[in-house]
Amino acid sequence: MPVALDPPRSLLPVAGVRLAIAEAQIRYAARRDLTLMELAPGTQVAGVFTRNRFRAAPVLVAEEHLATGQGIRALIINTGNANAGTGAAGLRAAEDSCRVVAAALGCTAQQVLPFSTGVIGEPIDLAGKIAAALPGCLPALAEDRWLEAADAIRTTDTVAKGASRQLNIAGKEVTVTGIAKGSGMIRPDMATMLAYIATDAALAPEALQPILKQAVNRSFNRITVDGDMSTNDACMLIATGRAGNLPLALGEADALIDAITEVATELAQAIVRDGEGASKFIPIRISGGRSVSECLQVAYRMAHSPLIKTAFFASDPNWGRLLAAIGSAGVEDLDVERVQIHLGDLCIVRNGARAAEYSEEAGQAVMARAEIPIHVDLGRGSAQEQIWTCDLSYDYVRINADYRS
Amino acid sequence: MPVALDPPRSLLPVAGVRLAIAEAQIRYAARRDLTLMELAPGTQVAGVFTRNRFRAAPVLVAEEHLATGQGIRALIINTGNANAGTGAAGLRAAEDSCRVVAAALGCTAQQVLPFSTGVIGEPIDLAGKIAAALPGCLPALAEDRWLEAADAIRTTDTVAKGASRQLNIAGKEVTVTGIAKGSGMIRPDMATMLAYIATDAALAPEALQPILKQAVNRSFNRITVDGDMSTNDACMLIATGRAGNLPLALGEADALIDAITEVATELAQAIVRDGEGASKFIPIRISGGRSVSECLQVAYRMAHSPLIKTAFFASDPNWGRLLAAIGSAGVEDLDVERVQIHLGDLCIVRNGARAAEYSEEAGQAVMARAEIPIHVDLGRGSAQEQIWTCDLSYDYVRINADYRS
Repeated sequence: MPVALDPPRSLLPVAGVRLAIAEAQIRYAARRDLTLMELAPGTQVAGVFTRNRFRAAPVLVAEEHLATGQGIRALIINTGNANAGTGAAGLRAAEDSCRVVAAALGCTAQQVLPFSTGVIGEPIDLAGKIAAALPGCLPALAEDRWLEAADAIRTTDTVAKGASRQLNIAGKEVTVTGIAKGSGMIRPDMATMLAYIATDAALAPEALQPILKQAVNRSFNRITVDGDMSTNDACMLIATGRAGNLPLALGEADALIDAITEVATELAQAIVRDGEGASKFIPIRISGGRSVSECLQVAYRMAHSPLIKTAFFASDPNWGRLLAAIGSAGVEDLDVERVQIHLGDLCIVRNGARAAEYSEEAGQAVMARAEIPIHVDLGRGSAQEQIWTCDLSYDYVRINADYRS
Repeated sequence: MPVALDPPRSLLPVAGVRLAIAEAQIRYAARRDLTLMELAPGTQVAGVFTRNRFRAAPVLVAEEHLATGQGIRALIINTGNANAGTGAAGLRAAEDSCRVVAAALGCTAQQVLPFSTGVIGEPIDLAGKIAAALPGCLPALAEDRWLEAADAIRTTDTVAKGASRQLNIAGKEVTVTGIAKGSGMIRPDMATMLAYIATDAALAPEALQPILKQAVNRSFNRITVDGDMSTNDACMLIATGRAGNLPLALGEADALIDAITEVATELAQAIVRDGEGASKFIPIRISGGRSVSECLQVAYRMAHSPLIKTAFFASDPNWGRLLAAIGSAGVEDLDVERVQIHLGDLCIVRNGARAAEYSEEAGQAVMARAEIPIHVDLGRGSAQEQIWTCDLSYDYVRINADYRS
């Protein structure tokens, strides 16, 4: 059950991006498991990918194709098989998939980016399955299929994830639409499982990658479900330039960056709200740190503690577990006497011990909520950071013990 | 259900160590929750303690008392309350507890070491409860109560943990007996929750601490249940000198060190076998590393992955999760093409991809066992390391969601 998360009711089309969905029988019959995204000529694309040393074949191929600078014309996304840990055969499968799409759309294989998600380590004839599915879905390519695409890229996600924004840039209406999937193996260090954000804004070519990095660092790189980093994480930013504005340089794009970051943050939070087995949504804010990195260190230490995550699942204000995690986060000279912890508005720890005004009843009242912000002040500096995570429930174990996505 | 772990049937007495157990009503009525260990004059004691920045009051007091060098005469151990996160009142409670024991035994408070385990952050009149319980248990002090002590120091442990060894040193029979408790919040970085190892061997005073550190580094510092480091971890080595051997210098103590390390390893493994909710015992060996630290980094990354732990619970050879964890362990220049992974004797990954001889059936056969050794060869050096962990089950969630120890 996702935490206060409904599927998007509508997503705004982005001029220059057409989508089609197919059932390609990749792992299951009668499941929409293939998404084709066709991009108009002149579209710019930037991407960030997992930093896992085991990188899936499609990640390697997508990076290589992006680097050729030929101008990307299509993205092909499958679920059911991650094409990771598949060695040379997997690389061939990813390259052949691009070839098949290129032949259908009349571009080069290097102008196609492949993305896969699903089970790791199972060899598959991906190109054959894509080739069989393409003729059926090509005629359906349309700009208004974002909702269907958000749905088709899901694996263990219970809810489709998407967000749109519109803004005005120098008199031109500009749209930003994004979709994402991801629910488990979520601890991105570059991007999340799969996320696609498109805008019709025109951007200077050199602006795209820094904008994406900035947005991702404030969104996808600030979430964790289980601390497990995927082999397939990828987040793409697509700018078709069809809005008609003069291309924006990096310094002129603040409003657009905000809109892209908002979409990315909404998608990233949606992934946590729909985290495997999640019943609580937990923003963790660390302030009073000496550096951003030590704030993140403490935040992730808490977010990855199974004892904290199970206490939240039980709505149990077992704040000793918070103390133990903060104290073992590797901040060697932390003065525990200066640490303050709030759950929502409730101060539970002051000067390293239970706050005088704290009561078990008040703690339980906060913990009963579905969204429980934690705020830790380390009392040693002015840096702060925020991440988002969820609890650890029976359903997390069930999903990951009973199921291969 | 612990994994292939029975409670010890007998534990050998150690001359110079007498024990008594009491019901002190610390958190629950009619529960043996207090253990007194009386040491003969001249006994040497060394200790290692948690490196958590939030250190419980008894840890702070025990360290201080050890440092006075007055010669420790007693240890007082309670369950039901960790006396952690309790501020100045907690420190007073720990000190007063020592005073109460000292008065009863006729020594100074500095000659008593206090230990607490249980719920964090609840103020308690520990000294009062101990004072009330002591008169009833003092007459029962005896050398043959190790089994009862192993039982009384448990919290969420389902099985008491203890081990004994005997060896001959220069014609003298020497005994080593140890007990430990711990089941959750287990990821010691100095020692585990509570462990006590006693020997009647005579040792040079300067040999005790290095022997303890060496034994702990090869045992308690190589286990993890949930990656959560306790505020109360402590491991004590007690040498009464009653065996009658000439005091051993560090360089002469190899056989004794081996026996102590064996006892420590047996206790440490028992903690993992009885890890909260554990149904599998998983030794993880990493070889072919460039350094011990990178071997440990990879080993702990795997041992702390909820996806790996739930796959083991499900007996599912989902080795893609192993790959993903190894690849994200922070070994930046890892060449995945050289990585090999074995489950038991079965090679599952060779050269970074599925081994040709691997089959799902063979994988499932290994995973169905209760003990599943993982061996990862990083193929880049000659360093190796080994740690022990367990799986993540429904029961882990149940224990930690429903229960405050």
